Amino acid sequence: MPHITLNSEEPGIRGLLRYRPETGRPISELAEVLLRGPSTLTRGERELIAAYVSALNGCRYCSAAHAATAAAQLPDGMVLVEQVRVDPGTAQVSAKLKALLAIAAAVQDSGLSVTAGLVADARAAEATDLEIHDTVLIAAAFCMMNRYVDGLATIAPEDPAVYAAGAQRLISQGYLPPPAGPSSRA
Amino acid sequence: MPHITLNSEEPGIRGLLRYRPETGRPISELAEVLLRGPSTLTRGERELIAAYVSALNGCRYCSAAHAATAAAQLPDGMVLVEQVRVDPGTAQVSAKLKALLAIAAAVQDSGLSVTAGLVADARAAEATDLEIHDTVLIAAAFCMMNRYVDGLATIAPEDPAVYAAGAQRLISQGYLPPPAGPSSRA
Repeated sequence: MPHITLNSEEPGIRGLLRYRPETGRPISELAEVLLRGPSTLTRGERELIAAYVSALNGCRYCSAAHAATAAAQLPDGMVLVEQVRVDPGTAQVSAKLKALLAIAAAVQDSGLSVTAGLVADARAAEATDLEIHDTVLIAAAFCMMNRYVDGLATIAPEDPAVYAAGAQRLISQGYLPPPAGPSSRA
Repeated sequence: MPHITLNSEEPGIRGLLRYRPETGRPISELAEVLLRGPSTLTRGERELIAAYVSALNGCRYCSAAHAATAAAQLPDGMVLVEQVRVDPGTAQVSAKLKALLAIAAAVQDSGLSVTAGLVADARAAEATDLEIHDTVLIAAAFCMMNRYVDGLATIAPEDPAVYAAGAQRLISQGYLPPPAGPSSRA
């Protein structure tokens, strides 16, 4: 049961975004730009970074939601997502994505854990400055989202079908809320 | 030296917000709502939560910047900020703020560390649901900001006068960027 009264049946971050639309809107906009906006990283690759960081943070809702959204947009689907969760170093991803995932794992630990060596490895694998920037910010943003979702003890459904349906909705509609969504605050 | 080329002399998060205005805008908007928008927590109290979490994350830039901004808006100034940094439990703050700082410290560790007992303590000290929500989100947001700032190795000036001047600018102008700020990307 959530720590506060959300007046919403929506699981995970969705009930929180509706509870406080003043903060929900910029959070949704940030997710939209980072995960779906113009980028040389594919949407599947960016969702994979989000899913991986969420798994490292032990956030069941975010990790299931973004694993499903990554899987639906990657050629090898959930097989690849699972390989990355177990060990990005041996997963069937490009050398560049491996290096970016290593940066994301460092960010999850602490910003201070991102070494010049990790950045040099990414650059040697042809990652651009903007790709490195966005990887750091996606990983950092999910350190926020995961703490927000679990810090208020929101509901995380068990049924994988919920996350698969959510992934389809995100892929077709994106992260931005519908215009003028009401607050669910009492 | 920052890990990527920022084309900006601005320290800490400021150079990053200019580098990528598409993400800079929602991040600034989130900070504005959380730290300066309408709330039953004072601006000084909210900056204190931000400074405390940033210190726990070892982020020198954010912790100095928000300590200065908190101090400039609290009756006991930097003395109080320093007391909280050392131990919120013995600092000269209200029972409610003590309980909220304990929640913030839990969030810094992990969302999963926020127990029902911590939330009950805050409610017993008359914290509202919205105050508990905002405390969790401020703490979570600074787990993002701190990782963003340090994960890209941005510059953190040594001179306290830089942070004091920055605090005065934030207090008078807020967190929103001036309209149509250009990108500093190459």
